[in-house]
Amino acid sequence: MNPDALQSLLQAIATGKVTPDQGLEKLKHFSFESIDEFAKIDHHRHLRTGFPEVIWGPGKTPEQIAQIMLTMARHSSTVMATRIEAMVAEQLQDQVPNLIYYPVARICALKTSTIPSMTGIIGILTAGTADLPVAEEAAVTAQLCGFKVQRLWDVGVAGIHRLLSHRELINQMDVLIVVAGMEGALPSVVAGMVDCPVIGVPTSVGYGVSFGGVAPLLTMLNSCAAGIGVVNIDNGFGAAILAGQILRTAIRLTHK
Amino acid sequence: MNPDALQSLLQAIATGKVTPDQGLEKLKHFSFESIDEFAKIDHHRHLRTGFPEVIWGPGKTPEQIAQIMLTMARHSSTVMATRIEAMVAEQLQDQVPNLIYYPVARICALKTSTIPSMTGIIGILTAGTADLPVAEEAAVTAQLCGFKVQRLWDVGVAGIHRLLSHRELINQMDVLIVVAGMEGALPSVVAGMVDCPVIGVPTSVGYGVSFGGVAPLLTMLNSCAAGIGVVNIDNGFGAAILAGQILRTAIRLTHK
Amino acid sequence: MNPDALQSLLQAIATGKVTPDQGLEKLKHFSFESIDEFAKIDHHRHLRTGFPEVIWGPGKTPEQIAQIMLTMARHSSTVMATRIEAMVAEQLQDQVPNLIYYPVARICALKTSTIPSMTGIIGILTAGTADLPVAEEAAVTAQLCGFKVQRLWDVGVAGIHRLLSHRELINQMDVLIVVAGMEGALPSVVAGMVDCPVIGVPTSVGYGVSFGGVAPLLTMLNSCAAGIGVVNIDNGFGAAILAGQILRTAIRLTHK
Amino acid sequence: MNPDALQSLLQAIATGKVTPDQGLEKLKHFSFESIDEFAKIDHHRHLRTGFPEVIWGPGKTPEQIAQIMLTMARHSSTVMATRIEAMVAEQLQDQVPNLIYYPVARICALKTSTIPSMTGIIGILTAGTADLPVAEEAAVTAQLCGFKVQRLWDVGVAGIHRLLSHRELINQMDVLIVVAGMEGALPSVVAGMVDCPVIGVPTSVGYGVSFGGVAPLLTMLNSCAAGIGVVNIDNGFGAAILAGQILRTAIRLTHK
Amino acid sequence: MNPDALQSLLQAIATGKVTPDQGLEKLKHFSFESIDEFAKIDHHRHLRTGFPEVIWGPGKTPEQIAQIMLTMARHSSTVMATRIEAMVAEQLQDQVPNLIYYPVARICALKTSTIPSMTGIIGILTAGTADLPVAEEAAVTAQLCGFKVQRLWDVGVAGIHRLLSHRELINQMDVLIVVAGMEGALPSVVAGMVDCPVIGVPTSVGYGVSFGGVAPLLTMLNSCAAGIGVVNIDNGFGAAILAGQILRTAIRLTHK
Amino acid sequence: MNPDALQSLLQAIATGKVTPDQGLEKLKHFSFESIDEFAKIDHHRHLRTGFPEVIWGPGKTPEQIAQIMLTMARHSSTVMATRIEAMVAEQLQDQVPNLIYYPVARICALKTSTIPSMTGIIGILTAGTADLPVAEEAAVTAQLCGFKVQRLWDVGVAGIHRLLSHRELINQMDVLIVVAGMEGALPSVVAGMVDCPVIGVPTSVGYGVSFGGVAPLLTMLNSCAAGIGVVNIDNGFGAAILAGQILRTAIRLTHK
Amino acid sequence: MNPDALQSLLQAIATGKVTPDQGLEKLKHFSFESIDEFAKIDHHRHLRTGFPEVIWGPGKTPEQIAQIMLTMARHSSTVMATRIEAMVAEQLQDQVPNLIYYPVARICALKTSTIPSMTGIIGILTAGTADLPVAEEAAVTAQLCGFKVQRLWDVGVAGIHRLLSHRELINQMDVLIVVAGMEGALPSVVAGMVDCPVIGVPTSVGYGVSFGGVAPLLTMLNSCAAGIGVVNIDNGFGAAILAGQILRTAIRLTHK
Amino acid sequence: MNPDALQSLLQAIATGKVTPDQGLEKLKHFSFESIDEFAKIDHHRHLRTGFPEVIWGPGKTPEQIAQIMLTMARHSSTVMATRIEAMVAEQLQDQVPNLIYYPVARICALKTSTIPSMTGIIGILTAGTADLPVAEEAAVTAQLCGFKVQRLWDVGVAGIHRLLSHRELINQMDVLIVVAGMEGALPSVVAGMVDCPVIGVPTSVGYGVSFGGVAPLLTMLNSCAAGIGVVNIDNGFGAAILAGQILRTAIRLTHK
Repeated sequence: MNPDALQSLLQAIATGKVTPDQGLEKLKHFSFESIDEFAKIDHHRHLRTGFPEVIWGPGKTPEQIAQIMLTMARHSSTVMATRIEAMVAEQLQDQVPNLIYYPVARICALKTSTIPSMTGIIGILTAGTADLPVAEEAAVTAQLCGFKVQRLWDVGVAGIHRLLSHRELINQMDVLIVVAGMEGALPSVVAGMVDCPVIGVPTSVGYGVSFGGVAPLLTMLNSCAAGIGVVNIDNGFGAAILAGQILRTAIRLTHK
Repeated sequence: MNPDALQSLLQAIATGKVTPDQGLEKLKHFSFESIDEFAKIDHHRHLRTGFPEVIWGPGKTPEQIAQIMLTMARHSSTVMATRIEAMVAEQLQDQVPNLIYYPVARICALKTSTIPSMTGIIGILTAGTADLPVAEEAAVTAQLCGFKVQRLWDVGVAGIHRLLSHRELINQMDVLIVVAGMEGALPSVVAGMVDCPVIGVPTSVGYGVSFGGVAPLLTMLNSCAAGIGVVNIDNGFGAAILAGQILRTAIRLTHK
Repeated sequence: MNPDALQSLLQAIATGKVTPDQGLEKLKHFSFESIDEFAKIDHHRHLRTGFPEVIWGPGKTPEQIAQIMLTMARHSSTVMATRIEAMVAEQLQDQVPNLIYYPVARICALKTSTIPSMTGIIGILTAGTADLPVAEEAAVTAQLCGFKVQRLWDVGVAGIHRLLSHRELINQMDVLIVVAGMEGALPSVVAGMVDCPVIGVPTSVGYGVSFGGVAPLLTMLNSCAAGIGVVNIDNGFGAAILAGQILRTAIRLTHK
Repeated sequence: MNPDALQSLLQAIATGKVTPDQGLEKLKHFSFESIDEFAKIDHHRHLRTGFPEVIWGPGKTPEQIAQIMLTMARHSSTVMATRIEAMVAEQLQDQVPNLIYYPVARICALKTSTIPSMTGIIGILTAGTADLPVAEEAAVTAQLCGFKVQRLWDVGVAGIHRLLSHRELINQMDVLIVVAGMEGALPSVVAGMVDCPVIGVPTSVGYGVSFGGVAPLLTMLNSCAAGIGVVNIDNGFGAAILAGQILRTAIRLTHK
Repeated sequence: MNPDALQSLLQAIATGKVTPDQGLEKLKHFSFESIDEFAKIDHHRHLRTGFPEVIWGPGKTPEQIAQIMLTMARHSSTVMATRIEAMVAEQLQDQVPNLIYYPVARICALKTSTIPSMTGIIGILTAGTADLPVAEEAAVTAQLCGFKVQRLWDVGVAGIHRLLSHRELINQMDVLIVVAGMEGALPSVVAGMVDCPVIGVPTSVGYGVSFGGVAPLLTMLNSCAAGIGVVNIDNGFGAAILAGQILRTAIRLTHK
Repeated sequence: MNPDALQSLLQAIATGKVTPDQGLEKLKHFSFESIDEFAKIDHHRHLRTGFPEVIWGPGKTPEQIAQIMLTMARHSSTVMATRIEAMVAEQLQDQVPNLIYYPVARICALKTSTIPSMTGIIGILTAGTADLPVAEEAAVTAQLCGFKVQRLWDVGVAGIHRLLSHRELINQMDVLIVVAGMEGALPSVVAGMVDCPVIGVPTSVGYGVSFGGVAPLLTMLNSCAAGIGVVNIDNGFGAAILAGQILRTAIRLTHK
Repeated sequence: MNPDALQSLLQAIATGKVTPDQGLEKLKHFSFESIDEFAKIDHHRHLRTGFPEVIWGPGKTPEQIAQIMLTMARHSSTVMATRIEAMVAEQLQDQVPNLIYYPVARICALKTSTIPSMTGIIGILTAGTADLPVAEEAAVTAQLCGFKVQRLWDVGVAGIHRLLSHRELINQMDVLIVVAGMEGALPSVVAGMVDCPVIGVPTSVGYGVSFGGVAPLLTMLNSCAAGIGVVNIDNGFGAAILAGQILRTAIRLTHK
Repeated sequence: MNPDALQSLLQAIATGKVTPDQGLEKLKHFSFESIDEFAKIDHHRHLRTGFPEVIWGPGKTPEQIAQIMLTMARHSSTVMATRIEAMVAEQLQDQVPNLIYYPVARICALKTSTIPSMTGIIGILTAGTADLPVAEEAAVTAQLCGFKVQRLWDVGVAGIHRLLSHRELINQMDVLIVVAGMEGALPSVVAGMVDCPVIGVPTSVGYGVSFGGVAPLLTMLNSCAAGIGVVNIDNGFGAAILAGQILRTAIRLTHK
């Protein structure tokens, strides 16, 4: 039951066409039917906050992805798909006009002129160069949401001076996404140096007992430096969304 | 080398008592010696931001904890210790004046009149009543940091109406800490309902294949709802610190 | 908003005291507020189907358990608590009148004269005698729900003739709960012999690589005999509830 | 020894051609030889209940699968093979007449006019669209067994309103198969909303710490909502068979 | 249906009191009912081969163990119980006459004059002295079965000369049980030195990543020396039974 | 130092060409140098017992395997290589004359007329047809060692009558190799039916929580039926070698 | 701020162009900016000690590897890349002059005439021939660092005489790298025979429960022979670097 | 056969009392009998290198430990036992004269005046104060071996300045033992700062997903800083022995 239908019903009661008891009966399942309406409102909120609609690529055919993107494009200013390999992206570009492909981030997005400019800077650090695809997934996602991004690659703890020499820059960030594979110690060291929130993203970079990213995940969860929120292995997208939520909270608080 | 010593050295160079080359030699290891000084500045920052100094109780004797608390109390307005069992707390109260014990949260803290009043409300939800100790560890930590806390217990997903009936309240929070053991599905559902950051805290509540909290941890990391930062099992303290970092970021952004 | 309030509102619209638009505004959050009402209906359904209200004992004090039981007793004919050790049960019996303790099943329940008599027989099998506490948890739960139970202990696969000699009895059951620790092979063999649903309950009985019940759990999930639904390790209670759901479905279908 | 042979033996005893002692000696190994006969009876039962004979495809050549199907077709009305990739299906269709291929479900089945019409509706829900192959394996299996199936895709918990808006439909089902990967929370939420049996099917959809379906499996086994029976990862077939067993139990109970 | 009953039935058919068809009907379920009879025969075989009846102690009360032992003693020459702690053994000795306790092996057995003398020697080796309880469980079990046992303690691979200096003795054994915790490498080295069967018994001796015996278990299963059969962690009893089966096979072959 | 050299040395001492002290010095490292000689003796023993020399194929090029086989063929009557894929086998057959390939077992062996005829029959059972490659690896290995083999395929526990109907045959075996994937329950049931040694071989057949064979491995190690020796996943070769060791022990005992 | 800039600053203070207070302000962030300078010193140290600059190949394109090698070659005498497959090496050789490829070790290195000759011999042992790639990675790395290497292949513990016959040679080594897959027992046995440091390198050679090298890793960590330092699975490179560190420590101590 | 017996035999050959052939026969098993002699030489080597004889306490009674210590004391200058709890130590002190107990290290050792003074300094670092028992086990072991030890506690990576401020001291060490629990990142950072060998010791300090030390173990094995040798969880003793081996190698090289 959508709001229009609801309004009509109340109108009918007011005019006596429907008795209150008949109305009560009709409203019995209102709570769940009205959820559809809620979904629309929720959808509007997403548009308003600048969050892109996102498609997770794996397990979908290029045709399916293209169709979903085109459908979404009708009511959403920002449409993106993650985990898109280069070959799939090529096929998508044949079917979807104005599609941009970010090859390192493996993201496809529709060109749009309406990305909002959001307050706050998200710093994204990687321990090694092999962590780049995950870091770029975070960076491109954040930028498509309208946030400014500061990239800082290859500052892993095995050469701690690399990290320390960028201390001042790091301290200017509002939220940090720290991406690391292998032993994944970078978020711990960074979180001990700053007082902004740190989001740890373990990557599947490594071999042997890195167990496809489980080792750096454990490192980040066990960190003796408090203030780290961890996301799934290789989940650059999720880290960017969380960083965005954090900055939007700041914006809302500013307006309170 | 502290700033005073550095100033003296530069003065000595200015007055010719020390040649530039001799000064250079002395400054060679400046970077690391001066770190001590930095540590002090860092410490001041902690005092300023209202972050308590925290002692992790396990593996320390009551005497050791008491001594550290008394030492900390000299230069920190807020001193607290986590994971303190009731019997240990009793012994501490004999040795440390003005000590308050929060039995459910298992936290000891020194009474202080200087807790700052921070902007923002942290909502703390639990799936079940058995998750209370972890949730209270988060709540008390947040309150000792000066944040307002809204508690909401026992709203697990097996009776989804319990959660939905508090939707309006939940949407008023600035950041959410969602505490859940067993299957740990609550943060996923909550993150799909709100647009503020969600911190997932898995607990060791459960039996069999809950594996001491590993199962809810995996649930939270795998969540199909983006925007959840996860901390270690039972780590209510860490969740509160992260929530605090998030709100302080908001405050800083407000002043930019 | 409860049904009465809703009725009053519609009445007010019908009589013109509230305009349709004002009513619409008030109904905006109806879906979630009305959930409270739903919860009550849901509660009634539980009473009607004969399902007991259940308290999971671990992590609660005897006082807490007693208080919850007494509260529940006001509106529920069957109240039970699981995983209650003998010493806790003794304390409960001091505080809760008419409490019955089932020591092997570790269940406490309030005496009641209103347990309904449900159609269908639940057969409960164990591989060994050490699986008895889990099997009894299932049996007592099922009986408190009103179902007839046929116990068959110690028919593990290492002496397959023990199982085969009861074949006729087993085939008379409407649903089977098969409880096994160690290698947990019994449900596979049983499911190959019958054509009723089989619920597998792995137990933590065993040592070494039984891994506290993980080994029999894997065995049951990997069973080459289709038609086995598996529950958590040692979860006799859950198995009984599932068996009850299955038989109630049968009853409902009968009345369609 | 088949029944005929047994009958002849008894006849020979009755007519004195064989002494009772000679007969006893011959019957010594009767129990196990007669099992062959039992197998046949069992086979008849399968035909009667409408259960298809099933071939698990992996590790078999198309020739082997074709041969087994043709052999089975001689005495079974319903013959199906699971986990058949499209390319293998093509090869099968060359060798087996009247073969139907269900590409999403990856099932091959012989066309048959004798599928019985069974009582009861099986609802099949998925959390995401990527869970479809597993859900379709369940759906096609159930339909080949003669059951009515109600599909409900993409109602995962991250947008709980999607699920709630179908509440009425869900409550009309007699048994539910709930298919979910990633965090696998859907069965918990569903089981809290209905009072029919819920079969949880974890899928290998996900990445990182979904561990190929282990994470949703743990979620389902740890569910705080009682009444969920869980099957192996991606085991849509097994879930359908279990659902069928549950409904047949209902039918049998009806005739008691 | 026992043999007597069967004989009577055939007699009745022979004398015409029962028709062949009536007899056939009665014999329908013969296969499974007769299994009980088989169980008795099986039981006799156990007595004949000298295998003791064995009770696994954990999870049974002293009273239960005592009662089972006394019952078994009526028809079995050798009765033993494993995993019996000293305190339980004391209580048993009050209730069961002629009970012998082997404290290191944690085995209780009834005194008996009829242990058969079996052919073949079982060599039992341990890597360290901490493996003794498991090794003694094997040794005492083997001796109660009537086998000669040669013990060889503390010959672990970290001092390979200890093992090599006993090479001649080891080569005289007919089957070897090799017990090792920590890294569990001893069976590999031993199996490379002998040409008799080697039974590997991992123990839970160790700490850290020995994971309660999982590490030595893996070592033994991965052994590059073929010819090792492995049993569960700490399962000295099972190793002895397997060794006994191996030697009895030899005896049977001799008589063929 | 080989025996000839040792004999020469002693001769030189006897004839005074070397003093005893000079001889002692030369013999100082005798123990380890003489090991080479031992290796030769050991080698002879292998030839004598009929054990083939075996090459593990994975990670070796066809050229390497061919070269090793040709070298071995000079002094060993039986030469075989395991885990050889069909394509590799073809290449080997070009380079090694008289090479036989067993495609299901994935074994290559040199034709030989000297395989000894060993006493005893090895029964090999599989739970399903997908376990055949592992079972055939065991069967061919055993046959190349000179043992008689009785194959019995597809007698898994989900249709227990299949197994029971072959009970008499199974009881005639001297040692049993039981091969099973998925839940791996077959060895438990078999070991409860026979009194010869049972060797359990878990296979990687299965999906989901079979974890590549870990699940059936655990099942076999946890078996409540004593007398099962377990080998690594898919290790049909190792099982055959162990079975051979067991039968050779029997032969040796016969001659004592 | 580099040393030159620092010298200029001090000079300016000495000549009065900059006041001490102005200088202090400028030096405020000296500690971290000067880290860059430290990095250079550190770099010099690497050149001095003969350590090659190393590139980890996986996840980099041939172009990227070539470019990094050419850049490094400008200031480093030894440049190498590990984990380079043959096809990648071919492409590299087109782009990088004077490149040598070690195919078994999968290492590419620039030809250089300046490899220093370091004191000490590194013995490298393997359990089997399949461990060669890892062992060669260690050997080539060590040789490129200037160390003498003694290779000893295929001396696994299943034929302990192979190892013992080389005892004298092994005892002449200054540090040992012991490479083993499958059960990984070789380092334990070796460490019990020598008194020099032993570095254990588990390899992913094996199948079933070798779990890609986890089993030999556990074996080495659990070794009852003290004095073994373990590195990641297949990490021949890391083992060589550690061996080099050990020998360089010796050289430094010699000069103290 | 000991050297004296060997000498006598050769003498007897020289004097013709024994023929060379008789001598050859007697020497046949010399290699393994002479191993006993080797063991003695090995033992002397241990005395000479200053390595203490060590008893692992767990699983031994105080009486057993006392007896072994007293026996060892007869021929070894340094005798120690590890993992001795305070209560056990008290009992030992009653039975063993001149016993010193190190309560934090949980080590008992006999007083001795003959600890050699070894070249080289072992630096021991801990991440937190809870790692002290493991670090002290390493420190006391090293000191009992005669090495100088530099302790540096509580320099974990969450406050990186603590570590950096001790850089100069750390660089003066000859070998470093780095002890860390929780996320275990300290060895990575340290190994990137020094060019001496680093031994990583993970500890079981932590909770949740530290998994009793598995998480820091993985961190250390995955370290992107090469040159770290890792030992078992909490194995301070093993780390000290390895450090000793490293320094002794240096001493030996000096004398070459």
